[in-house]
Amino acid sequence: MAGRAAAVLAMRPDVAESAFPAAVRARLDALVTVDHDLVVTDFAEPRSRAALAGAEILLTGWGCPPLTAEVLDAAPRLRAVIHAAGSVKHHLGPDFWARGILASSAADANAYPVAQFTLSVILLSGKRTFEMARQYADGAFKEAATSPRFGNVGRTVGVIGASRIGRLVLPMLAREGFRVLLADPTLTAADAAALVPAPGSVELVGLEDLLRRSDVVTVHAPSLPETHHLLDDTRLALMRDGSVLVNTARGALVDTDALVRHCASGRIDAFLDVTDPEPLPSGHPLFLLPNVVVTPHLAGAMGTEVAALGAFAVSEVERCLEGLPLLGAVHEDDLARIA
Amino acid sequence: MAGRAAAVLAMRPDVAESAFPAAVRARLDALVTVDHDLVVTDFAEPRSRAALAGAEILLTGWGCPPLTAEVLDAAPRLRAVIHAAGSVKHHLGPDFWARGILASSAADANAYPVAQFTLSVILLSGKRTFEMARQYADGAFKEAATSPRFGNVGRTVGVIGASRIGRLVLPMLAREGFRVLLADPTLTAADAAALVPAPGSVELVGLEDLLRRSDVVTVHAPSLPETHHLLDDTRLALMRDGSVLVNTARGALVDTDALVRHCASGRIDAFLDVTDPEPLPSGHPLFLLPNVVVTPHLAGAMGTEVAALGAFAVSEVERCLEGLPLLGAVHEDDLARIA
Repeated sequence: MAGRAAAVLAMRPDVAESAFPAAVRARLDALVTVDHDLVVTDFAEPRSRAALAGAEILLTGWGCPPLTAEVLDAAPRLRAVIHAAGSVKHHLGPDFWARGILASSAADANAYPVAQFTLSVILLSGKRTFEMARQYADGAFKEAATSPRFGNVGRTVGVIGASRIGRLVLPMLAREGFRVLLADPTLTAADAAALVPAPGSVELVGLEDLLRRSDVVTVHAPSLPETHHLLDDTRLALMRDGSVLVNTARGALVDTDALVRHCASGRIDAFLDVTDPEPLPSGHPLFLLPNVVVTPHLAGAMGTEVAALGAFAVSEVERCLEGLPLLGAVHEDDLARIA
Repeated sequence: MAGRAAAVLAMRPDVAESAFPAAVRARLDALVTVDHDLVVTDFAEPRSRAALAGAEILLTGWGCPPLTAEVLDAAPRLRAVIHAAGSVKHHLGPDFWARGILASSAADANAYPVAQFTLSVILLSGKRTFEMARQYADGAFKEAATSPRFGNVGRTVGVIGASRIGRLVLPMLAREGFRVLLADPTLTAADAAALVPAPGSVELVGLEDLLRRSDVVTVHAPSLPETHHLLDDTRLALMRDGSVLVNTARGALVDTDALVRHCASGRIDAFLDVTDPEPLPSGHPLFLLPNVVVTPHLAGAMGTEVAALGAFAVSEVERCLEGLPLLGAVHEDDLARIA
């Protein structure tokens, strides 16, 4: 009788603990042989190296070191690298792809919390909640609650990028009654219409048009060389007076220095869960502007949400063992269009 | 031919402007005769008094003075007071109810923004977003994103009160995957089950049980003499370590001094859109605690959202003229159970 496949975990120990709580671990143990006492953080370490020699499946997560050619050479039986997190760009480099090893990412399972966070931020920003909380703490109760600066009714939200996350955000925005614009050079108008339940609730437009017409601009594009500083000084200047930029994607999509200028003038507000650089140095102007909120990359799965990434990864292990296509399969040529 | 009914607007002028933008005003003008140049803020003023004499419908809003016996005596033709806002308690007192004049409130139209705001706050609180933004500004990037303190998965939210707003919040919470508890002494378990699409996704429990079991407690009870300090020191002490109190209802439901103590110890966090007193005086401890956010009563309709209240009021005018029952009808005995 053939033995069960051997799997190895490679990630920070705290990540292994939150991604694989008892119930998720039990599902994994029913599928493969895995030594939970060994959570690899350094492939050169002798015990890790020994485990690698027999591993058919590598379960990776935050803190997994890069799978260099040397590491891969030491894992001759490896069939699949299943990542219990979003982007595989950090640990899967050019040496990986030629070997015919399957790769999977849990980006689908990571997308929902990001979309949920983004929608919450957009709705609270519509009421200038963060600014009003600061003013209240400084002694000013709201005055003109009837000012058209406030409110989520009749607003237009522009979504940049029908990525995995953008595709979740779009119907959420339509459900909340926003007029929704989408800029994505890879889609046709018919593609865009199919992304929401009611045809006509999303309009595919050019990026410049989106920036000129939106009350809120939310960024969901991948971070690629060609999207570096997608929102540069010229494009930020197109945003409407009083509009809000929300970035829960990647910091490099926005020219930080230009954004500081546009926010410092009071012309636009921003909510940034990601920045360039990240972390943002202490005392950075973005921390000091009253109309900017910066959060430390919270939108993706964290805490109890990380178990959903582990659960997705275990389902991928199951599919892999049964010879089914992986739902989170990542191929080398995907890297040019994903985060 | 009988003339069209005369209507008078009584509210702050800025409220009239935001509740009745051009499109809403046009609908109103098609139904009744109304002098938009006269927006009453003082019923004793001669021009207001003259308009009152002929008014059949009074459209009220924020800033409408109380309808005293003397004011009502001066309005002998008055058939209905239609309020383009939530609570009628400020302007409709004991002198009003015996006269057979209809009363309507737009509380239904005000409920959605409150529910939307509440859900957004709950979702962001699950990631400790506000606390993390403050820590980041103070120089600390997130460290243990895997800590079970964070995340919206597997959480229990306790809803106090299946009010108009509570009934909107319940299915929203169920949709987001929370375990939902409800405390409402006026409901049976079957009533509670009927409030969400999937039976079993809400559990009716006692208030103390709810406080002991919830990760987030959100208050949607009416502010009445018997609910004054519903959450007092003893009940706040039942809340779980690390749990969050969200109040978007009324400040008097919570004993502010007791809450300060429970939050100051770091045991529980709070997000308060309403407080007692309100406004909260500058320098109040609630403004200074790092685990408390106070916003200046933003959850209800504001800015562009106020037009939805006006639109609801106009629909009520239409129903009144057609002799249909008012959808937002308020009766004297409702006052004992509504906000």
